[in-house]
Order: sequence, then structure tokens, then C-alpha cells
Amino acid sequence: MKAINVGLLGIGTVGGGTFNVLKRNEEEITRRAGRSIRITTVADKNLELARKVAGPGVKVTDDAFAVVADPDIDIVVELIGGYGVARQLVLAAIDNGKHVVTANKALLAVHGNEIFEAAQKRGVMVAFEAAVAGGIPIIKALREGLSANRIEWIAGIINGTTNFILSEMRDKGLPFAEVLKEAQALGYAEADPTFDIEGHDAAHKATIMSAIAFGVPMQFEAAHIEGITCLDSVDIAYAEQLGYRIKLLGIARMREEGIELRVHPTLVPGKRLLANVEGAMNAVLVQADAVGATLYYGKGAGAEPTASAVIADLVDVTRLHTADPEHRVPHLAFQPDQVRDLKVLPISEIITSYYLRMRVDDKPGVLADITRILADSGLSIEALIQKEAAEGEAQTDIIMLTHKTVEKNADAALALIEALPVVRGRVTRIRMENLQ
Amino acid sequence: MKAINVGLLGIGTVGGGTFNVLKRNEEEITRRAGRSIRITTVADKNLELARKVAGPGVKVTDDAFAVVADPDIDIVVELIGGYGVARQLVLAAIDNGKHVVTANKALLAVHGNEIFEAAQKRGVMVAFEAAVAGGIPIIKALREGLSANRIEWIAGIINGTTNFILSEMRDKGLPFAEVLKEAQALGYAEADPTFDIEGHDAAHKATIMSAIAFGVPMQFEAAHIEGITCLDSVDIAYAEQLGYRIKLLGIARMREEGIELRVHPTLVPGKRLLANVEGAMNAVLVQADAVGATLYYGKGAGAEPTASAVIADLVDVTRLHTADPEHRVPHLAFQPDQVRDLKVLPISEIITSYYLRMRVDDKPGVLADITRILADSGLSIEALIQKEAAEGEAQTDIIMLTHKTVEKNADAALALIEALPVVRGRVTRIRMENLQ
Repeated sequence: MKAINVGLLGIGTVGGGTFNVLKRNEEEITRRAGRSIRITTVADKNLELARKVAGPGVKVTDDAFAVVADPDIDIVVELIGGYGVARQLVLAAIDNGKHVVTANKALLAVHGNEIFEAAQKRGVMVAFEAAVAGGIPIIKALREGLSANRIEWIAGIINGTTNFILSEMRDKGLPFAEVLKEAQALGYAEADPTFDIEGHDAAHKATIMSAIAFGVPMQFEAAHIEGITCLDSVDIAYAEQLGYRIKLLGIARMREEGIELRVHPTLVPGKRLLANVEGAMNAVLVQADAVGATLYYGKGAGAEPTASAVIADLVDVTRLHTADPEHRVPHLAFQPDQVRDLKVLPISEIITSYYLRMRVDDKPGVLADITRILADSGLSIEALIQKEAAEGEAQTDIIMLTHKTVEKNADAALALIEALPVVRGRVTRIRMENLQ
Repeated sequence: MKAINVGLLGIGTVGGGTFNVLKRNEEEITRRAGRSIRITTVADKNLELARKVAGPGVKVTDDAFAVVADPDIDIVVELIGGYGVARQLVLAAIDNGKHVVTANKALLAVHGNEIFEAAQKRGVMVAFEAAVAGGIPIIKALREGLSANRIEWIAGIINGTTNFILSEMRDKGLPFAEVLKEAQALGYAEADPTFDIEGHDAAHKATIMSAIAFGVPMQFEAAHIEGITCLDSVDIAYAEQLGYRIKLLGIARMREEGIELRVHPTLVPGKRLLANVEGAMNAVLVQADAVGATLYYGKGAGAEPTASAVIADLVDVTRLHTADPEHRVPHLAFQPDQVRDLKVLPISEIITSYYLRMRVDDKPGVLADITRILADSGLSIEALIQKEAAEGEAQTDIIMLTHKTVEKNADAALALIEALPVVRGRVTRIRMENLQ
């Protein structure tokens, strides 16, 4: 059978990995796909690098728009990133009837609705396994493997940089800033780490998962996003004492009135597998009504793990691209006319439990005042530690775990607690998920 | 679009679950599949039960052969189990041009080569996600999600009964026989538990995974199978002291000279996620060259988890059944003409490391004699515990962990050790996998 011709846009880390894996496993991949898949053209601004990576026999150009218009190209792989020129190129490729494979989570989370609508109209496939959790086939699991289920919620460690930093903070008891430097030195964090540590990357991925899990549009702009920069290592230590670990989770939950879509540091019971996902590894826990909980674990980034996902998509598209669109899996798991217009709930409406730490005057009645406020707000306490005041200090820490409540209740209760004269400064609050 | 008509053979636990989930999630499933999937006919010897489960509007018969010949049926779901009549029915369904979805691991492991060849010739799909690890979409991950990779090995906890028993033995320090009774009372083990506790069920599943991971034929008859009935709780305790847990693993490993295919109790480092899969849960760890290690975790049995996999297959078949066979994923992941005739290696040729426990006379020089034999056999020691002899006893235990070797080396060394007059009885040997 005729070989499939691929045009690759962007020859960075993942592009290089895709070349390497396609070449090294050419035989294995062809044995599966039934035909040869070859990168015939590469577009990159850095022509020298592109020539070096691509090797002889591959056309190299700095004109990506020529590649997406090339009639000899069957599938365009977009590895440029961002949503400027990448968006134009993907839309142009679709317009030209090309199938697209992309690892670009930002593009899909922000412009996915537009892109998938265009692809639907033009009858082409847009595959994006590499956009979430690198080499873990989580998109396929959500979209196809769990298609019998109502998916109830997803909680994922979907950013390796932040998981590495949190693991190190916990293991070594070091503050965030110090561990960030170590992560940068080791290549786990970028020179400008904002995108990862502020939670934006995880929010892009959670947005994509929410769409294919629940059959709703991409709503990145409505996601609630908190990163790990304000996390104090004292809270990691207290959480540990209480049997919990703190992870940056991307959470999407389906409720009748809307969906929760949020990224924030989260206490997780230490016994859960998710709590034991260490270093730069990723894992996604999915709760669904028929199958119950399933978990998917692996490397969420890196040249070859991401290439693994890109190539799996190439094999999928290779098999199906000449078939009738009705035989394909819908881009976003649900038939395009079956997407529900269910909105993301404001953060004040989410339901969760909390870890609270407050600095209080060390005198009788303080705890009674605080617990009275919590009780009046319907916030019940699951566990409590009151530290003995250190020698010569007039203040001490109270740490509490609460049961579930609507966040606006917690907001109101904490405002009252912070207004108490015996409570010093802001209450530290970290959300907590039982994951059961 | 026209509804898909399904004929269901066998209305036991999974059949009932399939009915329930299809009904409860009808809307969700149709939103994904693009058309309605409905069970129109049920065949079971127990007509009364079948009528009760199926409810009104579903044809009920005790003649399964009539169902697989019914021109109105698009897909046959085989949930009878075993390889007697189930084999005849599946082959007859294929012969009649029906697509088949089956949860029958025994049938596929033993007669899979015949069945897939027939399906290939007739151009029909045979889907079997439910045959391995219940609701975990591991077949889809191996067959499609990891298609870029050379899969190196798979290690799975793929039998819930034995994992439950091993978890309880460890947690409560109880002997096998006692925990088995508890498992039976709780419904985690059958009245005749042989099939599970002797490792046959896990071996069926490991066989199926080896075929789709490596592109080799099903070779169940060559699998090495050991169950957990001879496992002593003292070894679980010693393993724990050494930082390991004992799990019944199904292992398939690709080597140039052949494949390893084996089921046996295995020491696993306690820190690995796989070691922390407790109770009746399943998990499969897959090592592949591009993506590295990925792990898939969830419920491996039960009505609705298994139904989740059966229905996911129904959705897949619904999408693709009218498409050209060339557009389908090959039954066994590799194109049928690309299956390699790679044999299962005899157990003496596997490469692994060992936990050894031996009862020895408590006198000087014993350890030197034993370690000399091991050194001469090229078996190096990773860790060693020599227990102090109990008050008034003339014998004591030596426990060792070895580095990797070919099993026949270990056989030879242990024969020499057992022949030493200071060594009492047989040496207890449990294989150990580092899983890295």
C-alpha cells in the first residue's frame, strides 16, 4: 500500500523524538499500521537544525504555509506550539483537506472549538493524544475506552515540572524557590517557568480532558487556576503529619448544574496511588459510573514519550483517513451535534473539603470561637491539630481538615474567622480531595 | 441512523451488567456512538432469568445457535465462557458474517489463533477488551495507544481473587487457607477457586497481552504457570522486611531469542505503584522503548466494570463495522501477515532474580559453603538475612535476594545447596522482578 506522507511543522525536542522513534521502530510501526509512515517534509525557521535532524531524503523548508498546502502531504504534524502562527497553520491545513496531529494543548484549550468545527466541516481528522499527559494514552482511554460510562470526575497530575518540585519540597523539606532552581538546573523547569508553576499548562490539559469526558465545549477561559508558587513547605509537612500529600491537580467534575474545572494545589490521602506519583511523572485518575476508578500513569513529557503519542495518532489517522468520516471516532468523543452547552461553574460554587492553617493567640476560648463559626457555616471538622505554643511565644498554629462544603460557605466562614481579633493574618487554605 | 442490533449469549453477572449499563447510559452512549445500540435478543439456558433481566421487548431464547444465525443481528456478544460451546458459537457467528464481542479469555488464549484467522478471512471484527483486566482499557492501550513502541515487557496484576488473598495474608499475617475461606465468604473467590488461585486465569490474560504487544501467536500451552497455593505467609513477612511485596504477576517479555510468558508469585519492590495495588484491584505495567513505563489501574472484574469494556467494544464495532476491513485496527494489533513466529522460551531460559529461604544447621561455615556455591554458579547476592537461631533450636533460616541470572543457573545452584548436609529440606524460591 502507498506510504503516508507526513509534513512536520517545528523541529524542536518532540519533533526530533518523532523522527527518531519513527526511524528506529519503522518495522514495528509498519507491521501495525499496514503501510509505511514517513516524514517527507519538515518546516522550521532553523533550517540548519532541521536539515541535521531530518537527514537526507527529507525536504526542508522555512515556509510552513507551503507544507500545509503541499498536495503530496497527507498528514500535517504541528509541533510549533502557542496559538499564533500554529493556529493559522492548523486552520490552513484543515482548509486544504489535510489531517492534523498536534501536541499543542494551548491551541486546543483556547481555540479548540473553532478548530474542531472547521475539521468537522472539512471532513478531516485532528488528533491530539500528545496534548495531554505526554505518552500516556489518556485521550484514547477517555474517548474510546470508557465510552460506556458517564464520567463523573477526573483528577490528574498533568504537569511534570510542578510534580517534581512538590516531590522535592516534601522529600527534602526545602522551600519552593530553592527547589525551583534545582529543577531548572536539571532541566525539569524552563528558564521562565511561569507557564508550568502558575498552573496554566495543567489548566490547558484539564480543559481538553473535560471536553472529551463530558461532551462539553472547551472553556479554558472559565477554568480556575492556581499554581504552586505560594505553597509553604510548612503546609506540606503538616499535611504529611495528617496522612496527606499535596499535589497540583487538574480537576474536572461533572455536576447537573455545570462542570467544575480547576487547577490548584490539593491535599490527597497518602494511601492513594495518585499521592504516590513522584518526580516528573504524570497520572490521571478517572471516576466513571460503570467502571469505577481507573488510573493511567506514565511520563507526561520528554522527546520520546511525547513522540509515542504523536505517532500513535499518525497510525490512527493512517488507518482511517480514507474511510468515511462517519466511521471515525468523533474528535471530541461525542458526536458534534451532541455537545452539551454546560457551563463551567464559578469557583465559589465548587464542592470540596479544606486544609486550614491559622495563626492564633495562645489563650483559652480561641478554638471554641473558631469552631463555632465553622459550625454556623455548616463546615464540619474532620481532623484538628492545635500546636503547643513554642517557648516564649504568645501565638500558635491551628491546623484543621474540614468535610465537604460549597466554596462560598468556606469563604464566608474564613472571612469571619480572619476578623476575630485572636486570629493573626490570613488563614492558609488548601483544597482537599478524598478521590473516592 | 439505523440502530445496531446486538444478540447476547449468556445472561450471567456480566450479561446483566451489560444490560444495566446500556440502559442507564443509553443517552450518553448514543451521543458518542452516533447511533443507538440495543440488545434485541438474549440466549440463555435459564429462560426465566433471561426474561427477568432482559425485560419486555427483548427476544429470549435458549437456542444460541439461532441467535448467531439471525440475519437481524449485527453483533454477537459472547459471555458464556469456557471453550466448548462458546468456541462453536463464536466460529458460527463469524461464519455468518457477524461481528463478535467477547469477554472470554480462556477461549481466546487457547483458540484465538483459529478464531482470528476465521474472522480475518470473513472480514469481521472480534473485539475483546473485557477479556483482560475487566474495565481497564488495556487492550486498546497496547493495540493502539502504544503503537509507536517496541513493547519490551508487561507485568500485570490481572487476577483480583489472588491479589485480594495476598493483600489479606500480608495485612493480617494469616495463612493462605484461612484467607481463601474469607475470600469465598466475601464473594472474591469462587466455590471452586482452582482456576484463579492456580494462576490459569492470569495466564490466559498474559497470553492475550503477549500476542497483541509483541505480534506473536497465542501460545497459552507454552506459558509457565504457578499459583499462590504454596505460598507461606512467613515469606510474605520476610519479603516485607526486605522492602518487597509478593504479588501474583502475569509477565510477558520480548527477547530476541523468544518470549517469556509466565505467571507466578513475584517479589516486587514495595515502592513501586504495582506493589501498592491492593485488594481485588488490577493493574498492568507496560515497559516500551519510546514511552518508557506506563501503568493502567482499575477494577479487573465485576458486572459493571466488565460491562464497561464490553460496551466500549460495541461502540468501536458500531463505528467501524460498515467500513472497509483495511480501515480497522488489526484484531491482534499487528497486520495478520506480520505476525512473527517467535516461540515462548522454556522456564529454564528465563532471566530473573530470586528470593531464597533455606533452613540450615546453626553452625560456623554454613553460610560460606552456600555463598561459595552461588558464586560458582554466577549468582550474586543483593541482600541477605541470617536469623539468629531461636532459643534451644539447632537450626535457623537464611534469606537471600539474588541478582539476575538465567533460571537454569539458579536450578543448578539450588540443587547443589539442597545437597549440602547442613541444609534441611527444600530451598524456598520465589522469583523477583525489579520492574525497571
